[in-house]
Amino acid sequence: MTTEHTDAAALLERTIAAIGPLDEAAAQAARDHQDRLTKPRGALGVLEDVAIRLAAITGSCPPPMPVPAAVAVFAADHGVHAQGVSPWPQEVTAQMVANFLAGGAVVNAFAAQVGASVTVVDVGVAADLAPASGLIDHKVARGTADLSQGPAMTRGQAEAAVAAGVSVAAGLIGDGARCLIAGDMGIANTTASAALICAFTGRDPARVTGRGTGVDDATLRHKIEVVRRGLAVNELPSERATALDVLARVGGFEHAAIAGFILGGAAARVPVILDGVIAGAAALVAAGIAPGAMDYCLAGHRSVEPGHLATLEHLGLRPLVDLELRLGEGTGAVLAYPLVCAAARVMHDVATFDAAGVSDKE
Amino acid sequence: MTTEHTDAAALLERTIAAIGPLDEAAAQAARDHQDRLTKPRGALGVLEDVAIRLAAITGSCPPPMPVPAAVAVFAADHGVHAQGVSPWPQEVTAQMVANFLAGGAVVNAFAAQVGASVTVVDVGVAADLAPASGLIDHKVARGTADLSQGPAMTRGQAEAAVAAGVSVAAGLIGDGARCLIAGDMGIANTTASAALICAFTGRDPARVTGRGTGVDDATLRHKIEVVRRGLAVNELPSERATALDVLARVGGFEHAAIAGFILGGAAARVPVILDGVIAGAAALVAAGIAPGAMDYCLAGHRSVEPGHLATLEHLGLRPLVDLELRLGEGTGAVLAYPLVCAAARVMHDVATFDAAGVSDKE
Repeated sequence: MTTEHTDAAALLERTIAAIGPLDEAAAQAARDHQDRLTKPRGALGVLEDVAIRLAAITGSCPPPMPVPAAVAVFAADHGVHAQGVSPWPQEVTAQMVANFLAGGAVVNAFAAQVGASVTVVDVGVAADLAPASGLIDHKVARGTADLSQGPAMTRGQAEAAVAAGVSVAAGLIGDGARCLIAGDMGIANTTASAALICAFTGRDPARVTGRGTGVDDATLRHKIEVVRRGLAVNELPSERATALDVLARVGGFEHAAIAGFILGGAAARVPVILDGVIAGAAALVAAGIAPGAMDYCLAGHRSVEPGHLATLEHLGLRPLVDLELRLGEGTGAVLAYPLVCAAARVMHDVATFDAAGVSDKE
Repeated sequence: MTTEHTDAAALLERTIAAIGPLDEAAAQAARDHQDRLTKPRGALGVLEDVAIRLAAITGSCPPPMPVPAAVAVFAADHGVHAQGVSPWPQEVTAQMVANFLAGGAVVNAFAAQVGASVTVVDVGVAADLAPASGLIDHKVARGTADLSQGPAMTRGQAEAAVAAGVSVAAGLIGDGARCLIAGDMGIANTTASAALICAFTGRDPARVTGRGTGVDDATLRHKIEVVRRGLAVNELPSERATALDVLARVGGFEHAAIAGFILGGAAARVPVILDGVIAGAAALVAAGIAPGAMDYCLAGHRSVEPGHLATLEHLGLRPLVDLELRLGEGTGAVLAYPLVCAAARVMHDVATFDAAGVSDKE
């Protein structure tokens, strides 16, 4: 455990150190190129910003197509499930892992539609999972401790889970991925997300705690109180608390791993498309660890969870898709992926005014 | 001309008569199936509505994948260009047709990204276009007359242009298309769109006239006055005016053809994804001709043109993509196409709770 702890901490330090600034020269070249293309200037709206950001991330204009994309679904369980914050039994986490591996979940359908791979990472499922193709075992523990009673994990567990995410990102990029998409699975993980969002944004639990997979009014009120208790018992926020401390006290293993996944993408200058409220809460952790990592993230979608909007506002991110989804698994981010590809493709395929012989505005 | 007029009017009558109601049994089967899939009920938000609508349109559950998609870009010029409503010279319409045919425009890039074909239809470009692969000649006239001085077209021209759109839809569906996307190209066509939107929604020109490809404040004020003059000189709205009359007085040939394209899709029970303000204005015409046709339309995106929001509200459509685009060509609709495919794919690929052995909510 001491060696693991040291290894994880060292990997994390190296990853943070590798995150460089965006390439402003490439961004400027992309801006200039956009203005020469056969369309009114600015007519592609947000997609022009995406194309420019891809150039800045990759340091290349036109930016390489973000192909192929790799989805990693980080699965973990939550001790706070014992507080009755979800109508779903905890075993659904493991059952859904089996569903992902069999190709039967929504994220599988969406990924197949856009040609993305799906890898499932057990970072803390409260069940023994049989080895399977497409499943990576990074289990840190069989679920977190109950955040409403004390710290959800130890500092060492938090580091191990973050390091797992870094490793998964590096592995997928090593296998050729040029766009990373983080998904999540974990019954009760919107409760931990709400606690993280409160801790990082300073908002009140009543404003950021949502219905998750669909709790009723009474359960929502109870869920808000559980989040409030978690923040109180863990004495958050504290000025001295680091992002890793906050994560360890009220987060989940999938939040930790997704934070590491973001850091790993940023360190390799590979864009990361964020999904909904769980990925958003994880992005707050990543931003706390290494603020520059946010420059490598695109907000895939806006979920209906109230805490997600608060998170996007806090991070200054503009979601690409807003279709009232509340599923997780990475689904919203996968839906945004073709939009990101379209933005990049414009930079490769579209003719300039000069080349096409099209008259410019008078 | 008399024969053409008769032929066009007859085709239009047959098409209107062929538009049937949505299949409510297929819609209910789709709703029931959505609720058995391994996800929280309703968790796919708007995409569940899209999947149910596709079932209702096609009369089949699960709905067939809307593949392949065919984009038709209807190009035409506008007499009102003479009023100085656009900073772009009129010859850009023909130049962009050449750009589409050479594969150099944004719609080409977006269509290539999603595997859709692009067909260009000359329904009224003010230039002689050489025959080319991918170009269909349905030229009604070399541009409309100036709507600010009198009717933009004759009733016969309006019918011919609508019939052209019906024919193009039928041809693409005959070639296998299972999703239709209407695009447009026509310098000054946001002016005619604004006039149509005022006529059909009763809004004031100052509220629905926008900057189009990017006019300055003075030109915008002038553009609003031109729209106002067009409505006054054509004595609109009139209670006795039919949708075809309104179209003929203040519309464009591409609006007419897109309206026909929508009717043709609806008659064949093939979904039509609408693009921005030009397609929206054309949809108002189609809805005026055959209200049931709107059931076969999906709103691809919301453009920044103020008249587009008014149109979507009037038609009760919810756009899938909202990325501040203002390009036309069908680009916003093509961006929405993968979302429509994803919605359909869920119905084919995703496992049910029973089949996957996943526990349902308690």
